[in-house]
Amino acid sequence: MAEKPKVVILGAGFGGLWAARKLANRPVDILLVDKNNYHTFLPLLYQVAAAELEPERIAQPVRYLIRDQANLNFRMGAVTAITPAEKTIAVDGEPIGYDYLIVALGSTTAFFGVPGAEEHCFTLKSIDEGIEMRNHILRTIEAASNEPDPAKQAEMLTFVIVGGGATGVEYAGALAELIYQPLEKDYPRVNLKKLARVILIEAGSQLLSGIDEGNYTAERLKKIGVDVRLNTKVASVEADRVNLAEGEPVLADTVLWAAGIQGQPVVKSAGVELTRGSQFEVLETLQSEDYPEMFVVGDLIRFMQDGEPLINTAQVAMQSGEVAAENIMALINQKPLENFRYYDKGMMATIGRNAAVANIGGRHFTGFFAWLIWLFIHLFFLIGFRNRIGVLTNWAWNYLFYERVVRLVMPLDSSKRESERATEKKSARQPA
Amino acid sequence: MAEKPKVVILGAGFGGLWAARKLANRPVDILLVDKNNYHTFLPLLYQVAAAELEPERIAQPVRYLIRDQANLNFRMGAVTAITPAEKTIAVDGEPIGYDYLIVALGSTTAFFGVPGAEEHCFTLKSIDEGIEMRNHILRTIEAASNEPDPAKQAEMLTFVIVGGGATGVEYAGALAELIYQPLEKDYPRVNLKKLARVILIEAGSQLLSGIDEGNYTAERLKKIGVDVRLNTKVASVEADRVNLAEGEPVLADTVLWAAGIQGQPVVKSAGVELTRGSQFEVLETLQSEDYPEMFVVGDLIRFMQDGEPLINTAQVAMQSGEVAAENIMALINQKPLENFRYYDKGMMATIGRNAAVANIGGRHFTGFFAWLIWLFIHLFFLIGFRNRIGVLTNWAWNYLFYERVVRLVMPLDSSKRESERATEKKSARQPA
Repeated sequence: MAEKPKVVILGAGFGGLWAARKLANRPVDILLVDKNNYHTFLPLLYQVAAAELEPERIAQPVRYLIRDQANLNFRMGAVTAITPAEKTIAVDGEPIGYDYLIVALGSTTAFFGVPGAEEHCFTLKSIDEGIEMRNHILRTIEAASNEPDPAKQAEMLTFVIVGGGATGVEYAGALAELIYQPLEKDYPRVNLKKLARVILIEAGSQLLSGIDEGNYTAERLKKIGVDVRLNTKVASVEADRVNLAEGEPVLADTVLWAAGIQGQPVVKSAGVELTRGSQFEVLETLQSEDYPEMFVVGDLIRFMQDGEPLINTAQVAMQSGEVAAENIMALINQKPLENFRYYDKGMMATIGRNAAVANIGGRHFTGFFAWLIWLFIHLFFLIGFRNRIGVLTNWAWNYLFYERVVRLVMPLDSSKRESERATEKKSARQPA
Repeated sequence: MAEKPKVVILGAGFGGLWAARKLANRPVDILLVDKNNYHTFLPLLYQVAAAELEPERIAQPVRYLIRDQANLNFRMGAVTAITPAEKTIAVDGEPIGYDYLIVALGSTTAFFGVPGAEEHCFTLKSIDEGIEMRNHILRTIEAASNEPDPAKQAEMLTFVIVGGGATGVEYAGALAELIYQPLEKDYPRVNLKKLARVILIEAGSQLLSGIDEGNYTAERLKKIGVDVRLNTKVASVEADRVNLAEGEPVLADTVLWAAGIQGQPVVKSAGVELTRGSQFEVLETLQSEDYPEMFVVGDLIRFMQDGEPLINTAQVAMQSGEVAAENIMALINQKPLENFRYYDKGMMATIGRNAAVANIGGRHFTGFFAWLIWLFIHLFFLIGFRNRIGVLTNWAWNYLFYERVVRLVMPLDSSKRESERATEKKSARQPA
């Protein structure tokens, strides 16, 4: 058969996957690349870190999702280079050519150069990090239950979350409910209600800015036991404390940094100009200014709309992924390209049990009704019918019995060491 | 209140947990120690390694299981020493005294000194190893799908299982069904039906000896595509092959060693005589000959009954755990101790879809009926109502849609490195 144009899509997140689906049954050969063999439903990652959901619940095997797409092949591996000047990318060092490229590699955490933050803080941007956070919380409380020194115990039982956006707020609420409900029952000999503290630090004056207005979110979090500190800047982080720009340092062994994102480092290899946050300033068609066959979507774009930079949500990733796919077909068929315009279907976040805030078309909803909307929207968008059932089961169980069903310290390590092990095979292994 | 006798139970497996429950509401102070914060339902571990069940499904938080037991405390940590001469044990190096001790640490894999086996083989004795096996299988097939050299590809797609006992047989069946059904569909560009091989090697002439008689099991495995080799001895294992005592070596990158068990190494520190397999030759009361206040249960005992050594099953662990608990109360109350006698409720194993063998009271059942028995018994004994629902859902899904729902390469590492990380905290971490 005739050579079809080769489209390479980097990343199987919302941007890459939605682009791949848009290209189904089109006359192109697609290679989808991701370092994991699964797609991650990141909006619920915080529930993995809070022992509410099994990691498997928010992951779907990519090959399963693309089974019906005959024109698509999947490659599991790390993108190690992007070389638009030569129309090639590299997977685990092996160069692969393309006719059209969609860069959808997403983002990692930005620490804004705060001393000690990168070294000492946990982050919540991947399933690995979610499992690690969960394990650490459970292991720390387990250790604290045997800690004789009250000062040290207090330090172990203080959990600081930096950043009052959706991740920070949702995790603060989930963590407080985990500690003050099921774990409180698990540790009858430790007074967690009295000793454990969850502190949410936000530099600005508003939590969930862009979603909430006023102080509903802060009030709600306080009600479930979160110590909310607005207008508070983090000066530096040490192994056992968070130093603030003003006032006393917070003594804590556990700090989650949820205060910012930046593009995946590998995009620097593309040799095009990037923002300080390693994002692309793309054309309105989502093309790179320098390389019209290279499209960028999702968290990797800094896109101005109506004079405002878009907040890089899952919605932005899905919509930009689809537009990039359509524009590639337009290029192939020499049709005019369409400009990307984000249609805001609304933004929302939960604040623990029965409470959420939503901004839908400029209208703000709070409380139980918003929480129900949140529930249904997330179930609806969760990929895989089976996972929907599973998540719903967990949620129902957690809700009815005030439980958190995944209080398991299960091992993991960095995908880096994993892939090493993959190459050197079992030879490194010793019996447990 | 008066000092109650202190009972320390090492291990929260079937032996330790059943002993702990038997001592509920008795006038003793119990400390239960386990290196994990969860109890593992090992009979279904092979399904985790075959991507049928999420690891969380066969694990239950220990503190959740013992919540209602006011006389019991839990300590998460590795047992580093057993010193019956001083009536102490050590957890992570910290000595803890006891009045009565139940050693229920279970077993690890025995390699019988076969050269290269320990270095190159996977094992299936813990959730970590189950996840690692699953990850390796999925990652290897993913890599093989991009392997240009046919010889190398064949080697990557050959999976050898050594040992024709329950673990080996059940995993061979589950692995064949994983590869020849859902993965076959996942890899339309690789002919797994033709290229992938699952080989089960057994030194003896009978699979599932003690459960099955005749060759039903072997026939059944052949039917689902397993290459069964009886009367075949493994001479040595290398990174890319299994050398047999007679005939051609088997070229394979993946070898699972399921051919034997031995007691956890730490029991050697007890300074009492052990069998070659690091098991205790206990009195009929399950007491150590040298230390009457030390009881040993489960996989750690070599127990002769009717002139035959017992096969160390979950049943043996539960029953011996309960007898040890009762005998401790008898010692405290200066009553006569009872002798342990294993009551065989039956043994069974599955051989893939719709097939199992069972030996119940000497009667042998095979086929669909045995499979149904297996299904219900395992659901019944699975701890935690929620997990029962979850497992049933997965099974129904897998059964109805010929799927395997957990085809996810999720990272893990040895619990050793985990606990290291726990101590050095996040400082070692680098952003992904």
